[in-house]
Amino acid sequence: LKSLIHEGSLTPGQGLPSSRALASDLGLSRNTVLIAFDQLRSEGYVSARPRAGLFVVADLRAAPPPAPPGVAAKPARLGGPPPFRPCQPDTRLFPLALWNRLRQCALRLHGPALLGYQSAHVLGLPVLRTQLARYLRDSRGVQCAPEQIAITSGSQQALYFIAQLARRRAAVLLEDPGYLGARDAFRAAGARLIPVPVDDEGMVPPALIPAGALVYTTPSRQFPTGATLPVARRLALLQAAAASGAWIIEDDYDSEFRYGRSPLPSLHSLDPAGRVIYVGTMSKVLSPSLRIGYVVLPREWMTPFAELRAVVEDHGPLVDQATLAEFIASGSFYSHIRRCRKEYADRLDTFLSTAEQLRLPLRFPHTDGGVNQCGRWLEPRAEAVWEGLEVPALSRYALRSQARGLVFGFTAFDHAAIKAGLRRFAAMLGSI
Amino acid sequence: LKSLIHEGSLTPGQGLPSSRALASDLGLSRNTVLIAFDQLRSEGYVSARPRAGLFVVADLRAAPPPAPPGVAAKPARLGGPPPFRPCQPDTRLFPLALWNRLRQCALRLHGPALLGYQSAHVLGLPVLRTQLARYLRDSRGVQCAPEQIAITSGSQQALYFIAQLARRRAAVLLEDPGYLGARDAFRAAGARLIPVPVDDEGMVPPALIPAGALVYTTPSRQFPTGATLPVARRLALLQAAAASGAWIIEDDYDSEFRYGRSPLPSLHSLDPAGRVIYVGTMSKVLSPSLRIGYVVLPREWMTPFAELRAVVEDHGPLVDQATLAEFIASGSFYSHIRRCRKEYADRLDTFLSTAEQLRLPLRFPHTDGGVNQCGRWLEPRAEAVWEGLEVPALSRYALRSQARGLVFGFTAFDHAAIKAGLRRFAAMLGSI
Repeated sequence: LKSLIHEGSLTPGQGLPSSRALASDLGLSRNTVLIAFDQLRSEGYVSARPRAGLFVVADLRAAPPPAPPGVAAKPARLGGPPPFRPCQPDTRLFPLALWNRLRQCALRLHGPALLGYQSAHVLGLPVLRTQLARYLRDSRGVQCAPEQIAITSGSQQALYFIAQLARRRAAVLLEDPGYLGARDAFRAAGARLIPVPVDDEGMVPPALIPAGALVYTTPSRQFPTGATLPVARRLALLQAAAASGAWIIEDDYDSEFRYGRSPLPSLHSLDPAGRVIYVGTMSKVLSPSLRIGYVVLPREWMTPFAELRAVVEDHGPLVDQATLAEFIASGSFYSHIRRCRKEYADRLDTFLSTAEQLRLPLRFPHTDGGVNQCGRWLEPRAEAVWEGLEVPALSRYALRSQARGLVFGFTAFDHAAIKAGLRRFAAMLGSI
Repeated sequence: LKSLIHEGSLTPGQGLPSSRALASDLGLSRNTVLIAFDQLRSEGYVSARPRAGLFVVADLRAAPPPAPPGVAAKPARLGGPPPFRPCQPDTRLFPLALWNRLRQCALRLHGPALLGYQSAHVLGLPVLRTQLARYLRDSRGVQCAPEQIAITSGSQQALYFIAQLARRRAAVLLEDPGYLGARDAFRAAGARLIPVPVDDEGMVPPALIPAGALVYTTPSRQFPTGATLPVARRLALLQAAAASGAWIIEDDYDSEFRYGRSPLPSLHSLDPAGRVIYVGTMSKVLSPSLRIGYVVLPREWMTPFAELRAVVEDHGPLVDQATLAEFIASGSFYSHIRRCRKEYADRLDTFLSTAEQLRLPLRFPHTDGGVNQCGRWLEPRAEAVWEGLEVPALSRYALRSQARGLVFGFTAFDHAAIKAGLRRFAAMLGSI
């Protein structure tokens, strides 16, 4: 009947057949027809006139015949990353059985409220913020109250929010080459991007920082070069920021992975003036598909940050937040990090020894940590495409930098895949 | 040693004691001291001079003594919503055991890649988009290809993205009174807000829509009044939008809950010109803490939407997306909706009959669906605070509207809580 009305076969003012007649015509029970009539009335297609039956309402324009829905291709099974895509953890090491048990604990502990709206906790569950404050104090030297931690969906969201809140600031200083996600977030907010050179000791601290600027840096392990910022540069940077009222954004994306020695303390831990915003993530150390990151903010940033988050998406997924709190509190997080660190150190050995055996014309200057290895060409090379591999050129991360080299992720691939990948790389290199 | 350096007790250029002497002084193994020295060197505190030992590096300014971390108060157990907070599903009805089984299936099906980065699926897992396309076609008459569906963290995120992408558009027409989340999202994007009156049949379709404007509407059940937009108004709205090149945003937040009759078809299903953007959410029908919503977009919006999402936060949490796909495919989603619908219909009966017994001076004009009941005062009343209850006044949702009344959510509360809450309300009413 709706189609007939939309097509114009039943015109405005025209009466519908009686329910009895229609039921008999269509071989339906009269009750079914009455239900359909009631529905048409409730949707406003027809109106009733006392003792005269139902009539098509005036002024109903033709709606189109419904288009057939797109035929869905059978979705392909999800794939893992190709070698040597940077920044990929090996999710085969994720302690799934343990995580699932802790998830059950968290569900029991918090009850059905964990599944409901918790807009009061737009910055994250208090249990998780408390656990993270402890972890950051013990592991990274970050001194902060749980109330200064905001849980985000990852470091990207933290950077986006920071960029939006700082929108009117004059300038953003970014490492060059540097992390594209940060650049995109600041560019989207309309910031003025100022590239800062990077050398073998990381970001070269600018002599002068424009008043009220933001400085984005990866001091533990500069992305993508892998250089570590020495303490003298750290202090120079902090002093320059304090002098100009700038904010330093410390993106500590993979500091958990230092091989052979302890992680460096964070920039945040050296900061007397409270100018450092500390950004971290569970993506490298646990699983990126959890979508849990965090940011340690100065107290005056908390309210604007919470208000912005409420407008963008309200609070985050809570079951995983509660599970992660259990995971940290139980000590499992620490053992997971140790296990991954050991495994990744072995893979790095395999990567470096294979590269040496194959006499690749690359040097790897920063081999003491991280999830990526930046290789520098020993001789000038044209940029090339590495079929079947994902080995981005350093130039991909550059604003003005002329540094040349390739970025290899090594953590997501087992020993055989690392060897095979590098052999493939060497073969292609020979044929260029 | 670090503290001594920062305090200035060890000054730039000063030599460290030998590892042997220090080990003996402190009662440590010499190996431990050597590891510490190595760490200090790697962090740039000291440098080595050949055959002379380690020296404090010049130019290290004093860093502050670390502040004691804030003492964390023991986090309170999460609470459920107070009666009658609007828009709250009863998460005690969430089929947790079944969901957990399907989650295990999803984890097995997709493997560890489900836990890794899947930035290619920034708009959501293909399996979920496919299942949602089917659900929307069968239940809401929405005809779209899976590729036109973007998974979001809820309807709020969908509205935020739409508002950001439409930033330069002249005007946004909003129902008045209307949904605050939409208003906040458009306001944050710098849009010009134009209130559109609402009467007992929902939004009064504007005679003329400014060229290129956006129109935000809740046609299935106007929020917060509960009115349903009749088909004649729907067609008028669609025609006006097509004529002026406007986009209509249909927020279908609780259409699954119609009691006694089938849900109305969506505005999207009546739209010949493709001017409707359809926004839906799992928050009311399943659980808000999953943070899964979706939006059906015109094809030309897909790329900008994906690009914006990548800058804001990359992809969403994948395990829940995969589980939800299983939940829909298995038919469990449909039975869950039926079960909730039946339960909520019973609660609505209790709500309305109790209100009648208590002779509340309110009328409830739209009792055929939804998760809230908007009560209109039978006589003028001053606004009041309802202690222990959350019953927002209609004025809270108003831009210019003078409509007076109260908004009661009823779905999250069992029969006893509904009766007790209304009795409490009646008692306070008597004492005003």
